Amino acid sequence: MEDHIRFNASERVLDLLDQRLLPTREERFLCHTVSDAIYAIQTMVVRGAPAIGVTAAYACALAASECRKEAGFAESFTQKLDLLVQSRPTAVNLAWAVERQRALWHAHPEATPDSLFAMLADNARIIQQADIASCKAIGQASLELVHEGDCILTHCNAGALATAGYGTALGVVRAAHEAGRNITVIADETRPLLQGARLTCWELHKDGIPVTLACDNSCACLMSKGKVQLVVVGADRIAANGDTANKIGTFGVAIMARHFNIPFYVAAPVSTIDRTIADGSLIPIEERSPEEVTRPLGQQAAPDGVGAFNFAFDVTPADLIAGIITDQGLLRPPYTKAIAALDFSR
Amino acid sequence: MEDHIRFNASERVLDLLDQRLLPTREERFLCHTVSDAIYAIQTMVVRGAPAIGVTAAYACALAASECRKEAGFAESFTQKLDLLVQSRPTAVNLAWAVERQRALWHAHPEATPDSLFAMLADNARIIQQADIASCKAIGQASLELVHEGDCILTHCNAGALATAGYGTALGVVRAAHEAGRNITVIADETRPLLQGARLTCWELHKDGIPVTLACDNSCACLMSKGKVQLVVVGADRIAANGDTANKIGTFGVAIMARHFNIPFYVAAPVSTIDRTIADGSLIPIEERSPEEVTRPLGQQAAPDGVGAFNFAFDVTPADLIAGIITDQGLLRPPYTKAIAALDFSR
Repeated sequence: MEDHIRFNASERVLDLLDQRLLPTREERFLCHTVSDAIYAIQTMVVRGAPAIGVTAAYACALAASECRKEAGFAESFTQKLDLLVQSRPTAVNLAWAVERQRALWHAHPEATPDSLFAMLADNARIIQQADIASCKAIGQASLELVHEGDCILTHCNAGALATAGYGTALGVVRAAHEAGRNITVIADETRPLLQGARLTCWELHKDGIPVTLACDNSCACLMSKGKVQLVVVGADRIAANGDTANKIGTFGVAIMARHFNIPFYVAAPVSTIDRTIADGSLIPIEERSPEEVTRPLGQQAAPDGVGAFNFAFDVTPADLIAGIITDQGLLRPPYTKAIAALDFSR
Repeated sequence: MEDHIRFNASERVLDLLDQRLLPTREERFLCHTVSDAIYAIQTMVVRGAPAIGVTAAYACALAASECRKEAGFAESFTQKLDLLVQSRPTAVNLAWAVERQRALWHAHPEATPDSLFAMLADNARIIQQADIASCKAIGQASLELVHEGDCILTHCNAGALATAGYGTALGVVRAAHEAGRNITVIADETRPLLQGARLTCWELHKDGIPVTLACDNSCACLMSKGKVQLVVVGADRIAANGDTANKIGTFGVAIMARHFNIPFYVAAPVSTIDRTIADGSLIPIEERSPEEVTRPLGQQAAPDGVGAFNFAFDVTPADLIAGIITDQGLLRPPYTKAIAALDFSR
């Protein structure tokens, strides 16, 4: 599943697995322009903070290509990068990747649009490969936390499909599985877009890792029955104090884990940490269309005229998090100190 | 909405609003036999503990009618009543209603099947009318708890559709609304069968009470934003110590309410209290088909070969419940004492 994001440099096409259609159809979505890529990010053809970052990095190369015949290249290119950064607000990896590409451009002001395209495409590939390496490092850093026979509950999809491959939360699962531990997974279905049911179940089932689906509201029941030994989730943005924005519902799972004394871990690369933000209250939270709630899988569930809340993310306070598993090792509270000690230059 | 359960004594037909089709279609489901009624209860044409009780009471009359030409009336009739009691395990009102009807029969051993049919049908109507009165008494008992401008979060549907009319948790809402308080409601959608989205939104919107839908996993987010002043839910069975079985997800809402210091109330008639059961661990919890989870509204959401948990109910421990609002008044902890003081003879 490492090839769900492909880039054809000679054709100048970004080729994505269309995650909206899973698990019933495996089709590709082709991006020829930055607009196509923005559409893919906004409609969740591709989603998951690190995967959006990789997609945006390739989209920067498309932007250079698109602007190559324009008189004011710098202005047009800048405008496209800015639009790309704004395509979704919460995941910091998107801005992180675009700013990396922008810095590469600024470091090579002499580059022609065509050579810039090639540089950006190469750098995107480096970001993509580094993300897989990060996920594997997260998996290794987590091995001490996962024991033989454990059942790991996860929320949404922080898997291969949410990253360049391997996954963050599901990287923890995969590393334990590869280490020969008989573990099982409970996947929260994750309404409204059912990424747990559609994506987490799909990729774990493909890999032969035992997974059972549960409605989001089953969490307390399953925890009270002793069916969950630890919780591992991904992250869209982590503030300097460890507060973590992740898919809506994560905060509730963390509260329930605390109630039942079950450890709750966040798994994310250091690139998901936003040191410029002191705490979670400053993380912008995307609100999406109420129709995603009122029309599950396109079927009408609520009467006409009734609205719905649809915050895409919530913020779990650092004090509910037992550890943050990063590609630079396992962080333990106090997170402000642990995060300040990380190397952000890599 | 008081007529969602109708009985035509001359035609000997129990006529139910088919709740499976709401909110998009309003159709009736006709029961001519006990088997029809059992099917309606099991497939959730009708659901909600008190509504199931009323349905079962009328189904006892159908049973008397069906058995009237059989040689061994007593044996056949007993068998049908027993099957009816077993149709769903968790809600105690089902057994409560059937045992009331059985007692009426035992008190009139001389009755012919036809006169027994008439007696049972009359008694079912009394149970139905008493349930509406109970709901209104619950509403009155709750008025001190609901204040101007409050937003009440509720889970599943404990409304007119779950009772003979008016509702338990939604009886609390209706009483406050009728008392002129500007209240609003957040309805948890309540996966897997979406009773919150389909039924609670439908009946509140019809009554002009402002309601907003939310995915079950939004609860912590909404509570943390100060959007919820109190939680009110119904009950399927309450043990002698106050532990409460209700729709899956209720337990999690109670944990989150405790985390945010939001009062969590249960609203139920005394007939929902099962004094024969010391605590919630003894309440039988129905498990339903995994397909209800893997195929929301009939659409495939999970890959083939992946199973799902589908406990229909969970048990909220009494210590998370701020009060139990009954038709005999508001109970406060310790519930063992408060429940023992109730009048169960009514």
